[in-house]
Amino acid sequence: MRARQRAIVLVSGGLDSCVTAAMAARAHELALLHATYGQRTAARERRAFEEIADALGVPAERRCVIDLGFLAELGGSALTDATLELPHGPPGREIPITYVPFRNAHLLAAGVSWAEVIGASSVWIGAVEQDSSGYPDCRAAFFGAFERAVRLGAREGQRLRIEAPLVALSKAEIVRRGLALDAPLQLTWSCYRSTDLACGRCESCWLRREAFRLAGASDPLAYAE
Amino acid sequence: MRARQRAIVLVSGGLDSCVTAAMAARAHELALLHATYGQRTAARERRAFEEIADALGVPAERRCVIDLGFLAELGGSALTDATLELPHGPPGREIPITYVPFRNAHLLAAGVSWAEVIGASSVWIGAVEQDSSGYPDCRAAFFGAFERAVRLGAREGQRLRIEAPLVALSKAEIVRRGLALDAPLQLTWSCYRSTDLACGRCESCWLRREAFRLAGASDPLAYAE
Repeated sequence: MRARQRAIVLVSGGLDSCVTAAMAARAHELALLHATYGQRTAARERRAFEEIADALGVPAERRCVIDLGFLAELGGSALTDATLELPHGPPGREIPITYVPFRNAHLLAAGVSWAEVIGASSVWIGAVEQDSSGYPDCRAAFFGAFERAVRLGAREGQRLRIEAPLVALSKAEIVRRGLALDAPLQLTWSCYRSTDLACGRCESCWLRREAFRLAGASDPLAYAE
Repeated sequence: MRARQRAIVLVSGGLDSCVTAAMAARAHELALLHATYGQRTAARERRAFEEIADALGVPAERRCVIDLGFLAELGGSALTDATLELPHGPPGREIPITYVPFRNAHLLAAGVSWAEVIGASSVWIGAVEQDSSGYPDCRAAFFGAFERAVRLGAREGQRLRIEAPLVALSKAEIVRRGLALDAPLQLTWSCYRSTDLACGRCESCWLRREAFRLAGASDPLAYAE
Protein backbone atom coordinates (compact mmCIF):
# COMPACT_ATOMS: atom_id res chain seq x y z
CA MET A 1 0.00 0.00 0.00
CA ARG A 2 1.08 3.54 -0.68
CA ALA A 3 1.93 5.50 2.45
CA ARG A 4 0.29 8.64 1.15
CA GLN A 5 -2.97 9.07 -0.69
CA ARG A 6 -2.75 10.17 -4.25
CA ALA A 7 -4.01 13.62 -5.23
CA ILE A 8 -4.71 14.79 -8.77
CA VAL A 9 -3.94 18.48 -9.22
CA LEU A 10 -5.16 20.41 -12.24
CA VAL A 11 -2.08 22.38 -13.29
CA SER A 12 -2.54 25.01 -15.99
CA GLY A 13 0.96 26.35 -15.55
CA GLY A 14 -0.22 29.56 -13.89
CA LEU A 15 0.49 30.96 -10.47
CA ASP A 16 -2.58 29.65 -8.68
CA SER A 17 -2.33 26.05 -9.81
CA CYS A 18 1.38 26.00 -8.98
CA VAL A 19 0.66 27.06 -5.40
CA THR A 20 -2.18 24.54 -5.22
CA ALA A 21 0.19 21.74 -6.29
CA ALA A 22 2.70 22.80 -3.64
CA MET A 23 -0.07 22.70 -1.02
CA ALA A 24 -1.25 19.25 -2.11
CA ALA A 25 2.33 17.95 -2.10
CA ARG A 26 2.60 18.43 1.66
CA ALA A 27 0.41 15.41 2.37
CA HIS A 28 -0.15 13.57 -0.91
CA GLU A 29 1.54 11.79 -3.73
CA LEU A 30 0.97 14.12 -6.69
CA ALA A 31 -0.49 13.29 -10.09
CA LEU A 32 -0.65 16.35 -12.35
CA LEU A 33 -3.24 16.91 -15.08
CA HIS A 34 -2.87 19.58 -17.74
CA ALA A 35 -5.31 20.46 -20.51
CA THR A 36 -4.87 22.27 -23.76
CA TYR A 37 -8.02 23.64 -25.30
CA GLY A 38 -6.94 25.76 -28.22
CA GLN A 39 -6.16 28.75 -26.02
CA ARG A 40 -3.78 31.38 -27.45
CA THR A 41 -0.88 30.59 -25.14
CA ALA A 42 -1.31 26.79 -25.05
CA ALA A 43 2.29 25.91 -25.94
CA ARG A 44 3.74 28.27 -23.34
CA GLU A 45 1.40 26.93 -20.65
CA ARG A 46 2.33 23.38 -21.53
CA ARG A 47 6.02 24.24 -21.06
CA ALA A 48 5.24 25.82 -17.68
CA PHE A 49 3.33 22.66 -16.69
CA GLU A 50 6.27 20.39 -17.52
CA GLU A 51 8.77 22.61 -15.73
CA ILE A 52 6.60 22.84 -12.62
CA ALA A 53 6.17 19.05 -12.66
CA ASP A 54 9.96 18.67 -12.93
CA ALA A 55 10.49 21.05 -10.03
CA LEU A 56 7.97 19.15 -7.89
CA GLY A 57 9.61 15.83 -8.74
CA VAL A 58 6.54 14.31 -10.40
CA PRO A 59 7.54 11.47 -12.74
CA ALA A 60 6.20 11.12 -16.28
CA GLU A 61 3.77 8.34 -15.38
CA ARG A 62 1.99 10.70 -12.99
CA ARG A 63 1.63 13.49 -15.53
CA CYS A 64 -1.22 13.60 -17.99
CA VAL A 65 -1.89 16.10 -20.78
CA ILE A 66 -5.31 16.02 -22.37
CA ASP A 67 -6.74 17.73 -25.41
CA LEU A 68 -9.99 19.63 -24.88
CA GLY A 69 -9.70 21.27 -28.30
CA PHE A 70 -13.46 21.06 -28.75
CA LEU A 71 -13.79 23.99 -26.34
CA ALA A 72 -12.14 26.20 -28.97
CA GLU A 73 -14.40 24.72 -31.66
CA LEU A 74 -17.48 25.51 -29.59
CA GLY A 75 -16.15 29.06 -29.21
CA GLY A 76 -17.55 31.88 -27.15
CA SER A 77 -14.32 33.03 -25.49
CA ALA A 78 -11.55 35.52 -26.29
CA LEU A 79 -9.07 33.00 -24.88
CA THR A 80 -9.73 30.60 -27.73
CA ASP A 81 -10.91 32.98 -30.47
CA ALA A 82 -8.17 35.28 -31.73
CA THR A 83 -10.72 37.46 -33.52
CA LEU A 84 -12.03 38.68 -30.16
CA GLU A 85 -10.07 41.36 -28.32
CA LEU A 86 -8.54 40.61 -24.93
CA PRO A 87 -9.48 43.12 -22.24
CA HIS A 88 -6.81 45.11 -20.40
CA GLY A 89 -6.38 45.99 -16.75
CA PRO A 90 -8.48 45.05 -13.73
CA PRO A 91 -11.61 42.91 -14.03
CA GLY A 92 -14.92 44.73 -14.43
CA ARG A 93 -18.27 43.86 -12.91
CA GLU A 94 -19.45 41.59 -15.71
CA ILE A 95 -18.28 38.09 -16.58
CA PRO A 96 -15.47 38.93 -19.03
CA ILE A 97 -15.13 37.76 -22.60
CA THR A 98 -12.22 35.56 -21.51
CA TYR A 99 -14.71 33.20 -19.81
CA VAL A 100 -14.51 29.77 -21.48
CA PRO A 101 -18.02 28.35 -21.12
CA PHE A 102 -18.14 25.87 -18.21
CA ARG A 103 -14.43 25.07 -18.64
CA ASN A 104 -13.80 24.08 -15.05
CA ALA A 105 -16.47 21.40 -15.24
CA HIS A 106 -14.50 19.76 -18.06
CA LEU A 107 -11.26 19.98 -16.10
CA LEU A 108 -12.79 18.57 -12.94
CA ALA A 109 -14.54 15.77 -14.83
CA ALA A 110 -11.22 14.80 -16.42
CA GLY A 111 -9.62 14.79 -12.99
CA VAL A 112 -12.38 12.53 -11.68
CA SER A 113 -12.09 10.12 -14.62
CA TRP A 114 -8.34 9.85 -14.10
CA ALA A 115 -8.81 9.50 -10.34
CA GLU A 116 -11.03 6.49 -10.94
CA VAL A 117 -8.37 4.87 -13.12
CA ILE A 118 -5.32 5.54 -10.92
CA GLY A 119 -7.01 5.40 -7.54
CA ALA A 120 -6.63 8.99 -6.39
CA SER A 121 -8.73 10.23 -3.49
CA SER A 122 -8.97 13.91 -4.38
CA VAL A 123 -8.94 16.34 -7.29
CA TRP A 124 -7.44 19.77 -6.59
CA ILE A 125 -8.18 22.95 -8.53
CA GLY A 126 -6.49 26.33 -8.02
CA ALA A 127 -9.56 28.42 -8.66
CA VAL A 128 -9.93 31.79 -6.94
CA GLU A 129 -13.27 33.41 -6.23
CA GLN A 130 -12.10 36.69 -4.70
CA ASP A 131 -9.68 38.98 -6.57
CA SER A 132 -10.54 37.15 -9.77
CA SER A 133 -12.20 37.62 -13.11
CA GLY A 134 -15.63 36.65 -11.81
CA TYR A 135 -15.94 33.42 -13.76
CA PRO A 136 -18.99 31.52 -12.48
CA ASP A 137 -17.12 28.20 -12.54
CA CYS A 138 -14.60 29.53 -10.00
CA ARG A 139 -17.08 29.84 -7.15
CA ALA A 140 -16.91 27.77 -3.99
CA ALA A 141 -20.61 26.93 -4.30
CA PHE A 142 -19.98 25.39 -7.71
CA PHE A 143 -17.23 23.15 -6.38
CA GLY A 144 -19.46 21.97 -3.56
CA ALA A 145 -22.23 21.13 -6.01
CA PHE A 146 -19.79 19.40 -8.36
CA GLU A 147 -18.46 17.28 -5.51
CA ARG A 148 -22.00 16.12 -4.76
CA ALA A 149 -22.45 15.23 -8.43
CA VAL A 150 -19.22 13.22 -8.29
CA ARG A 151 -20.43 11.39 -5.20
CA LEU A 152 -23.54 10.29 -7.10
CA GLY A 153 -22.13 9.79 -10.57
CA ALA A 154 -18.67 8.22 -10.27
CA ARG A 155 -17.89 4.66 -9.27
CA GLU A 156 -15.53 5.76 -6.50
CA GLY A 157 -17.42 8.99 -5.97
CA GLN A 158 -18.15 8.38 -2.31
CA ARG A 159 -14.51 8.71 -1.39
CA LEU A 160 -13.49 11.38 -3.90
CA ARG A 161 -13.04 14.96 -2.73
CA ILE A 162 -12.87 18.15 -4.77
CA GLU A 163 -10.35 20.50 -3.14
CA ALA A 164 -10.19 24.20 -4.01
CA PRO A 165 -7.86 25.48 -1.28
CA LEU A 166 -7.39 28.97 -2.79
CA VAL A 167 -11.01 29.71 -3.50
CA ALA A 168 -11.48 32.08 -0.55
CA LEU A 169 -7.97 33.58 -0.52
CA SER A 170 -6.87 36.94 -1.85
CA LYS A 171 -4.32 36.89 -4.67
CA ALA A 172 -1.75 38.47 -2.33
CA GLU A 173 -2.30 35.70 0.19
CA ILE A 174 -1.80 33.13 -2.58
CA VAL A 175 1.57 34.68 -3.42
CA ARG A 176 2.54 34.59 0.27
CA ARG A 177 1.54 30.92 0.56
CA GLY A 178 3.49 30.09 -2.56
CA LEU A 179 6.62 31.80 -1.26
CA ALA A 180 6.27 30.14 2.15
CA LEU A 181 6.02 26.72 0.47
CA ASP A 182 8.91 27.49 -1.86
CA ALA A 183 6.63 26.81 -4.83
CA PRO A 184 8.44 27.27 -8.17
CA LEU A 185 6.67 30.55 -9.02
CA GLN A 186 9.51 31.51 -11.37
CA LEU A 187 8.36 28.74 -13.72
CA THR A 188 4.72 29.79 -13.95
CA TRP A 189 3.03 31.57 -16.85
CA SER A 190 0.00 33.83 -16.44
CA CYS A 191 -0.18 36.04 -19.52
CA TYR A 192 -3.25 35.54 -21.73
CA ARG A 193 -1.62 37.12 -24.78
CA SER A 194 2.11 36.50 -25.17
CA THR A 195 4.27 33.41 -25.08
CA ASP A 196 7.76 34.93 -24.92
CA LEU A 197 7.61 38.02 -22.72
CA ALA A 198 4.48 38.53 -20.60
CA CYS A 199 2.49 41.51 -21.91
CA GLY A 200 1.95 43.01 -18.46
CA ARG A 201 -1.37 44.53 -19.53
CA CYS A 202 -3.96 41.78 -19.96
CA GLU A 203 -6.36 41.03 -17.14
CA SER A 204 -4.35 38.02 -16.03
CA CYS A 205 -1.03 39.92 -15.95
CA TRP A 206 -2.76 42.75 -14.10
CA LEU A 207 -4.13 40.41 -11.41
CA ARG A 208 -0.77 38.72 -10.98
CA ARG A 209 1.27 41.91 -10.67
CA GLU A 210 -1.22 43.36 -8.23
CA ALA A 211 -0.93 40.18 -6.16
CA PHE A 212 2.85 40.43 -5.87
CA ARG A 213 2.63 44.15 -5.15
CA LEU A 214 0.12 43.65 -2.33
CA ALA A 215 2.14 40.75 -0.96
CA GLY A 216 5.18 43.04 -0.86
CA ALA A 217 7.09 40.50 -2.96
CA SER A 218 8.94 40.72 -6.21
CA ASP A 219 7.54 38.88 -9.22
CA PRO A 220 10.25 36.68 -10.75
CA LEU A 221 8.74 37.18 -14.22
CA ALA A 222 9.83 39.94 -16.62
CA TYR A 223 7.18 41.99 -18.40
CA ALA A 224 7.10 43.81 -21.73
CA GLU A 225 5.77 46.96 -20.07
CA MET B 1 -37.14 35.56 -31.78
CA ARG B 2 -37.30 31.83 -32.26
CA ALA B 3 -40.75 30.43 -31.71
CA ARG B 4 -39.37 27.34 -29.96
CA GLN B 5 -36.62 27.06 -27.39
CA ARG B 6 -33.51 25.29 -28.49
CA ALA B 7 -32.63 21.92 -26.94
CA ILE B 8 -29.27 20.22 -27.13
CA VAL B 9 -29.61 16.45 -27.29
CA LEU B 10 -26.64 14.14 -26.70
CA VAL B 11 -26.95 11.61 -29.51
CA SER B 12 -24.65 8.61 -29.41
CA GLY B 13 -26.38 6.91 -32.29
CA GLY B 14 -27.98 4.28 -30.06
CA LEU B 15 -31.62 3.45 -29.44
CA ASP B 16 -32.07 5.50 -26.27
CA SER B 17 -30.61 8.75 -27.53
CA CYS B 18 -32.61 8.45 -30.75
CA VAL B 19 -35.86 8.18 -28.79
CA THR B 20 -34.74 11.07 -26.58
CA ALA B 21 -34.14 13.26 -29.63
CA ALA B 22 -37.60 12.38 -30.98
CA MET B 23 -39.12 13.36 -27.62
CA ALA B 24 -37.23 16.67 -27.50
CA ALA B 25 -38.27 17.44 -31.09
CA ARG B 26 -41.92 17.63 -30.11
CA ALA B 27 -41.45 21.02 -28.40
CA HIS B 28 -37.94 22.26 -29.25
CA GLU B 29 -35.62 23.22 -32.03
CA LEU B 30 -32.99 20.48 -31.94
CA ALA B 31 -29.22 20.84 -31.77
CA LEU B 32 -27.48 17.46 -31.72
CA LEU B 33 -24.14 16.75 -30.02
CA HIS B 34 -22.15 13.59 -30.67
CA ALA B 35 -18.88 12.56 -29.06
CA THR B 36 -16.23 10.12 -30.13
CA TYR B 37 -13.93 8.90 -27.38
CA GLY B 38 -11.87 6.14 -28.89
CA GLN B 39 -14.59 3.56 -28.36
CA ARG B 40 -14.42 0.40 -30.50
CA THR B 41 -17.42 1.24 -32.67
CA ALA B 42 -16.83 5.00 -32.97
CA ALA B 43 -17.07 5.20 -36.77
CA ARG B 44 -20.31 3.19 -36.88
CA GLU B 45 -21.86 5.31 -34.13
CA ARG B 46 -20.86 8.48 -35.94
CA ARG B 47 -22.63 7.23 -39.07
CA ALA B 48 -25.74 6.45 -37.03
CA PHE B 49 -25.61 9.96 -35.55
CA GLU B 50 -25.50 11.62 -38.98
CA GLU B 51 -28.30 9.44 -40.35
CA ILE B 52 -30.51 10.11 -37.33
CA ALA B 53 -29.82 13.84 -37.67
CA ASP B 54 -30.78 13.65 -41.35
CA ALA B 55 -33.99 11.81 -40.51
CA LEU B 56 -34.90 14.40 -37.89
CA GLY B 57 -34.17 17.25 -40.30
CA VAL B 58 -31.41 18.83 -38.23
CA PRO B 59 -29.18 21.03 -40.44
CA ALA B 60 -25.37 20.86 -40.32
CA GLU B 61 -25.02 24.07 -38.30
CA ARG B 62 -26.97 22.49 -35.47
CA ARG B 63 -24.86 19.31 -35.38
CA CYS B 64 -21.65 19.14 -33.43
CA VAL B 65 -19.17 16.28 -33.17
CA ILE B 66 -16.53 16.52 -30.47
CA ASP B 67 -13.45 14.47 -29.74
CA LEU B 68 -13.13 13.16 -26.18
CA GLY B 69 -10.26 10.89 -27.18
CA PHE B 70 -8.56 11.51 -23.85
CA LEU B 71 -11.10 9.16 -22.25
CA ALA B 72 -9.49 6.29 -24.17
CA GLU B 73 -6.03 7.53 -23.16
CA LEU B 74 -7.06 7.57 -19.50
CA GLY B 75 -8.32 4.02 -19.95
CA GLY B 76 -10.18 1.87 -17.49
CA SER B 77 -12.96 0.61 -19.78
CA ALA B 78 -13.46 -2.33 -22.12
CA LEU B 79 -15.26 0.04 -24.50
CA THR B 80 -12.04 1.92 -25.21
CA ASP B 81 -9.42 -0.75 -24.48
CA ALA B 82 -9.49 -3.60 -27.00
CA THR B 83 -7.26 -5.73 -24.74
CA LEU B 84 -10.14 -6.07 -22.26
CA GLU B 85 -12.86 -8.59 -23.03
CA LEU B 86 -16.44 -7.41 -23.55
CA PRO B 87 -18.99 -9.22 -21.39
CA HIS B 88 -21.86 -11.18 -22.96
CA GLY B 89 -25.51 -11.40 -22.07
CA PRO B 90 -27.50 -9.64 -19.37
CA PRO B 91 -25.90 -7.19 -16.94
CA GLY B 92 -24.69 -8.58 -13.62
CA ARG B 93 -24.88 -6.99 -10.20
CA GLU B 94 -21.56 -5.14 -10.38
CA ILE B 95 -20.66 -2.06 -12.41
CA PRO B 96 -19.39 -3.73 -15.61
CA ILE B 97 -16.03 -3.33 -17.25
CA THR B 98 -17.72 -1.38 -20.05
CA TYR B 99 -18.15 1.58 -17.65
CA VAL B 100 -16.19 4.57 -19.00
CA PRO B 101 -15.18 6.51 -15.89
CA PHE B 102 -17.52 9.48 -15.37
CA ARG B 103 -18.22 9.68 -19.10
CA ASN B 104 -21.65 11.25 -18.81
CA ALA B 105 -20.22 14.18 -16.86
CA HIS B 106 -18.03 14.96 -19.87
CA LEU B 107 -20.95 14.67 -22.27
CA LEU B 108 -23.21 16.86 -20.15
CA ALA B 109 -20.48 19.46 -19.62
CA ALA B 110 -19.96 19.64 -23.39
CA GLY B 111 -23.70 20.09 -23.83
CA VAL B 112 -23.71 22.91 -21.30
CA SER B 113 -20.72 24.66 -22.92
CA TRP B 114 -22.41 24.50 -26.32
CA ALA B 115 -25.72 25.62 -24.80
CA GLU B 116 -24.01 28.74 -23.48
CA VAL B 117 -22.64 29.53 -26.94
CA ILE B 118 -25.80 28.90 -29.00
CA GLY B 119 -28.38 29.90 -26.42
CA ALA B 120 -30.06 26.57 -25.73
CA SER B 121 -32.24 26.20 -22.66
CA SER B 122 -31.82 22.49 -22.00
CA VAL B 123 -29.45 19.57 -22.45
CA TRP B 124 -31.07 16.15 -23.00
CA ILE B 125 -29.46 12.81 -22.28
CA GLY B 126 -30.94 9.39 -23.06
CA ALA B 127 -29.61 7.65 -19.97
CA VAL B 128 -31.56 4.75 -18.48
CA GLU B 129 -31.33 3.77 -14.83
CA GLN B 130 -33.59 0.71 -14.83
CA ASP B 131 -32.97 -2.20 -17.22
CA SER B 132 -29.46 -0.93 -17.75
CA SER B 133 -25.85 -1.79 -17.12
CA GLY B 134 -25.78 -0.12 -13.71
CA TYR B 135 -23.43 2.70 -14.62
CA PRO B 136 -23.35 5.22 -11.76
CA ASP B 137 -23.46 8.17 -14.15
CA CYS B 138 -26.84 7.00 -15.49
CA ARG B 139 -28.71 7.59 -12.23
CA ALA B 140 -31.46 10.18 -11.83
CA ALA B 141 -29.83 11.43 -8.63
CA PHE B 142 -26.64 12.20 -10.54
CA PHE B 143 -28.48 14.26 -13.14
CA GLY B 144 -30.22 16.26 -10.42
CA ALA B 145 -26.89 16.97 -8.75
CA PHE B 146 -25.28 17.88 -12.06
CA GLU B 147 -28.09 20.30 -12.84
CA ARG B 148 -27.46 22.04 -9.52
CA ALA B 149 -23.76 22.29 -10.40
CA VAL B 150 -24.69 23.82 -13.76
CA ARG B 151 -26.92 26.33 -12.04
CA LEU B 152 -23.97 27.49 -9.91
CA GLY B 153 -21.12 27.13 -12.39
CA ALA B 154 -22.33 28.22 -15.83
CA ARG B 155 -23.06 31.77 -16.93
CA GLU B 156 -26.57 30.91 -18.08
CA GLY B 157 -26.88 28.13 -15.54
CA GLN B 158 -29.97 29.51 -13.85
CA ARG B 159 -32.09 28.87 -16.92
CA LEU B 160 -30.43 25.65 -18.11
CA ARG B 161 -32.17 22.33 -17.51
CA ILE B 162 -30.76 18.84 -17.66
CA GLU B 163 -33.41 16.50 -19.08
CA ALA B 164 -33.18 12.73 -18.80
CA PRO B 165 -36.67 11.68 -19.89
CA LEU B 166 -35.90 7.94 -20.13
CA VAL B 167 -34.13 7.57 -16.82
CA ALA B 168 -37.04 5.89 -15.04
CA LEU B 169 -38.44 3.96 -18.01
CA SER B 170 -38.02 0.29 -18.80
CA LYS B 171 -36.23 -0.55 -22.04
CA ALA B 172 -39.48 -1.99 -23.43
CA GLU B 173 -41.27 1.26 -22.67
CA ILE B 174 -38.50 3.16 -24.48
CA VAL B 175 -39.05 1.04 -27.59
CA ARG B 176 -42.79 1.69 -27.38
CA ARG B 177 -42.25 5.46 -27.05
CA GLY B 178 -39.86 5.41 -29.98
CA LEU B 179 -42.35 3.56 -32.18
CA ALA B 180 -45.18 5.88 -31.13
CA LEU B 181 -43.07 8.92 -32.08
CA ASP B 182 -41.96 7.33 -35.34
CA ALA B 183 -38.34 7.74 -34.23
CA PRO B 184 -35.88 6.39 -36.85
CA LEU B 185 -34.95 3.29 -34.85
CA GLN B 186 -33.82 1.52 -38.02
CA LEU B 187 -30.87 3.92 -38.19
CA THR B 188 -29.59 3.36 -34.65
CA TRP B 189 -26.56 1.32 -33.61
CA SER B 190 -26.25 -0.39 -30.23
CA CYS B 191 -23.62 -3.11 -30.57
CA TYR B 192 -20.47 -2.62 -28.49
CA ARG B 193 -18.40 -4.96 -30.63
CA SER B 194 -19.17 -4.92 -34.35
CA THR B 195 -19.55 -2.21 -36.94
CA ASP B 196 -21.07 -4.13 -39.85
CA LEU B 197 -23.49 -6.71 -38.46
CA ALA B 198 -24.50 -6.38 -34.80
CA CYS B 199 -23.03 -9.25 -32.77
CA GLY B 200 -26.27 -9.99 -30.92
CA ARG B 201 -24.39 -11.19 -27.86
CA CYS B 202 -22.74 -8.26 -26.09
CA GLU B 203 -24.48 -6.66 -23.14
CA SER B 204 -25.78 -3.80 -25.25
CA CYS B 205 -27.21 -6.09 -27.97
CA TRP B 206 -28.73 -8.25 -25.24
CA LEU B 207 -30.48 -5.27 -23.60
CA ARG B 208 -31.76 -4.00 -26.93
CA ARG B 209 -33.16 -7.33 -28.13
CA GLU B 210 -34.82 -7.93 -24.80
CA ALA B 211 -36.42 -4.48 -25.03
CA PHE B 212 -37.96 -5.19 -28.44
CA ARG B 213 -39.07 -8.65 -27.30
CA LEU B 214 -40.81 -7.29 -24.19
CA ALA B 215 -42.36 -4.48 -26.22
CA GLY B 216 -43.78 -7.10 -28.60
CA ALA B 217 -42.10 -5.31 -31.48
CA SER B 218 -39.71 -6.38 -34.17
CA ASP B 219 -36.17 -4.96 -34.12
CA PRO B 220 -35.35 -3.48 -37.54
CA LEU B 221 -31.66 -4.42 -37.09
CA ALA B 222 -30.17 -7.70 -38.31
CA TYR B 223 -27.92 -9.70 -35.98
CA ALA B 224 -25.03 -12.08 -36.56
CA GLU B 225 -26.56 -14.65 -34.23
